[in-house]
Amino acid sequence: MVQTLSDTIVALSTPPGAGALAVVRLSGPDAVGITQALFSKKNLAGQPGHTLHYGTLREPASGEILDEVVVALYRAPRSYTREDVVEISGHGSDFIVRQILAAFLRQGARLAEAGEFTKRAFLNGALDLAQAEAVADLIAADSALSHQVALNQLRGGFSDELRGLRAQLVQFAALLELELDFGEEDVEFADRSGLARLLAEVQGVVRGLLRSFELGNVIKNGITTVIAGRPNAGKSTLLNALLREERAIVSAIPGTTRDFIEDEVSIDGLRFRFVDTAGLRDNPADEVEAIGVRRTRERIGQAALLLYLFDLTELTPSEVQADIAELTAALPKLPALAVGNKRDLASPAQLAAFQALAGENQTVEIISAGQRQGLEELQAALLAQVRGAGLAGAGSATIVTNVRHARALEEALGYLAAVEQGLAQGRGTELLAADLRHALAALGSITGEISTDDLLTSIFTQFCIGK
Amino acid sequence: MVQTLSDTIVALSTPPGAGALAVVRLSGPDAVGITQALFSKKNLAGQPGHTLHYGTLREPASGEILDEVVVALYRAPRSYTREDVVEISGHGSDFIVRQILAAFLRQGARLAEAGEFTKRAFLNGALDLAQAEAVADLIAADSALSHQVALNQLRGGFSDELRGLRAQLVQFAALLELELDFGEEDVEFADRSGLARLLAEVQGVVRGLLRSFELGNVIKNGITTVIAGRPNAGKSTLLNALLREERAIVSAIPGTTRDFIEDEVSIDGLRFRFVDTAGLRDNPADEVEAIGVRRTRERIGQAALLLYLFDLTELTPSEVQADIAELTAALPKLPALAVGNKRDLASPAQLAAFQALAGENQTVEIISAGQRQGLEELQAALLAQVRGAGLAGAGSATIVTNVRHARALEEALGYLAAVEQGLAQGRGTELLAADLRHALAALGSITGEISTDDLLTSIFTQFCIGK
Repeated sequence: MVQTLSDTIVALSTPPGAGALAVVRLSGPDAVGITQALFSKKNLAGQPGHTLHYGTLREPASGEILDEVVVALYRAPRSYTREDVVEISGHGSDFIVRQILAAFLRQGARLAEAGEFTKRAFLNGALDLAQAEAVADLIAADSALSHQVALNQLRGGFSDELRGLRAQLVQFAALLELELDFGEEDVEFADRSGLARLLAEVQGVVRGLLRSFELGNVIKNGITTVIAGRPNAGKSTLLNALLREERAIVSAIPGTTRDFIEDEVSIDGLRFRFVDTAGLRDNPADEVEAIGVRRTRERIGQAALLLYLFDLTELTPSEVQADIAELTAALPKLPALAVGNKRDLASPAQLAAFQALAGENQTVEIISAGQRQGLEELQAALLAQVRGAGLAGAGSATIVTNVRHARALEEALGYLAAVEQGLAQGRGTELLAADLRHALAALGSITGEISTDDLLTSIFTQFCIGK
Repeated sequence: MVQTLSDTIVALSTPPGAGALAVVRLSGPDAVGITQALFSKKNLAGQPGHTLHYGTLREPASGEILDEVVVALYRAPRSYTREDVVEISGHGSDFIVRQILAAFLRQGARLAEAGEFTKRAFLNGALDLAQAEAVADLIAADSALSHQVALNQLRGGFSDELRGLRAQLVQFAALLELELDFGEEDVEFADRSGLARLLAEVQGVVRGLLRSFELGNVIKNGITTVIAGRPNAGKSTLLNALLREERAIVSAIPGTTRDFIEDEVSIDGLRFRFVDTAGLRDNPADEVEAIGVRRTRERIGQAALLLYLFDLTELTPSEVQADIAELTAALPKLPALAVGNKRDLASPAQLAAFQALAGENQTVEIISAGQRQGLEELQAALLAQVRGAGLAGAGSATIVTNVRHARALEEALGYLAAVEQGLAQGRGTELLAADLRHALAALGSITGEISTDDLLTSIFTQFCIGK
């Protein structure tokens, strides 16, 4: 692994755009020297780490003032990257940031690549690879659960669990390697039955982690929920009502409104990605409508959850059951929630009919989207459906959210199964040791104890610049 | 002026969006205490100002971790607002920022209004009003000159000049007031001829500042330059060529591409706002084209500069002169630059004809937009036109860029003229003193020595939140 850590990198670390503050970050052996070339009012060289210094940045050649700034000084190894780090807090203007970056480049700094600060933190041993990846996840987190899972991973929860597994296996691997050293003498240092027990245990833990990936994926990417129903069931009114509940909470804080939130709602920390669909009709009126219905079916095929919305005053319980059965015919495992709308307009008899249906192995929620009645119960029912399908859990247990980690775990599991099989078939030590080494390598690739340049590049280029 | 400075305000100070870092800022008597309620690993109360502290932010009630952060501590009065200030540097995620802000609000902080940190800096005497306004200008600055003018104003250049003027007038005002105290005795403490000389001098300076406002406006808002010409003269090619020159400089830095840059180019620190127009034809073919031509004329009416582009191989010098004369017929003061395009295709005779024209009181540039020839000369010619019209100057002299300041200067000038007239007519001390007081108040309103709540509100609500 050849890495150049001898140069000093620089980047804008705050989001671009106009704001009160912008922070430009430098890291590397010459971070303080390069800053000093532009900074006046104080000699930074003599200052201790973890201190703040007010002053003026000037273009050294012309003496022209770039900005009034505060310099935050971190001394190696007590910094994010474990190198000397300087963070310069200036006025939040893209123009000023460009000028400052250009001046630092002229002083010999290099523009940092995406994720390069965090990559240096990894290469210098401040973070392992799984922790480094959690930094990107943390920045992208936009629900309470995804935030908690990323923070747990950043704080080393997942890494500790993997280290525990590896430590147990390493011990056996060492004993097997020892047997190989004494290959001619046919000794057995490693207790075969102890190894079998350990393999079963480790495979159990790895399988548990792999199962958590399904949940991890939901936490990270949200639960795709298709809202289907006949025309005028009130699908858009429902979506707006759910969104309005959430919007009320976030509206006081600037910059939170984003386009894609249009159809995403966070319920109890879990993100639901609602997909609105065209109304479904018994007999499509024409070719165009038939295409719309086919698309709705395709979307249901990709969903994690189906919310079938109907008008309590229009349909009978058997029609509702028939619609749901038809929609999920090819998808027996898809959880489906029936939601009866317009309860404020329904007759007591209509309400009673559906309350009876609710007993028969079918979850039915009765709401009024327009009057905003029953929405809390609906949210609870959505969560219950997700939990029933094993798609939600506590944020504290280790949850795998990263595809790369899941693949490495699968690979490790394959080699562990091979060791187990080899043991059962009484295969030679050499073969057992080789498979065990592969399993250890796969587990080690998650935290970066085993890594390659290509792997590091593919991981860190997914970061934003400045991190 | 009643202002509540007893509460502690909080806001996100970096632009919203995903990034490596986000900075949340608190200011007020309880800034450190409120931070401490969430911050673990260290007792902040005992720490000196201008220091950095790594730690964990937790929701106090649940113990749930919000983020791993660095806390920057500033002690009153050595801070931006002269109050205790804490800046919390966390992961750049809107979700995390929302959580942190909400937690601080629950601890008793109040969400800061737009510009409220800078308003506190003003109320606590860290900045005067003109300097505070320069903060907003600095953040909005997007050319070298607007940046320099705002920085000069922030550093107190303009304020010093005004203070000098006021100090001279205040002395005379005091002598006039003294005469009023001895009103019955008909004494003259103030030397009337000295006052007349001073009034002439001060009015000269104020007039100079007012003249600089035209330039200041150009620096702040750019020079609107209409590109006109017959169809296929190459207007779009020229604009693209000019833009490409600038794009090459900025493309290496993230986040600099903005939609409106499409037609703005910064030349030697001055921003030119190019307005492309429909091609002008001798005889409009139809009604629609006639409307296009009318619109072009309207735009020329609003322009600060006309760039008339023509095809060297198509037009004769007299046709070019006739076109320009027609376009500027109603606008005798509009500077116009004739630019001949396609010089790579023109015959020597055609080139010679226009070089001759260039002598006759008309500026003609010869370029090839497609081959990118002559663009530097064209940029120099554009600057020369602007300077010739008095619309550019050095960035070091004081330049008024703010409409509010210009109005106050005009008001002061009116009262100074009244004093001068009163002196000439031998009017009573009382009237002279009253007009002089009004002039002083107008000048004082610029730096905020005289201010009202309404004025402060109208100024600071134009700021971004967090500044």
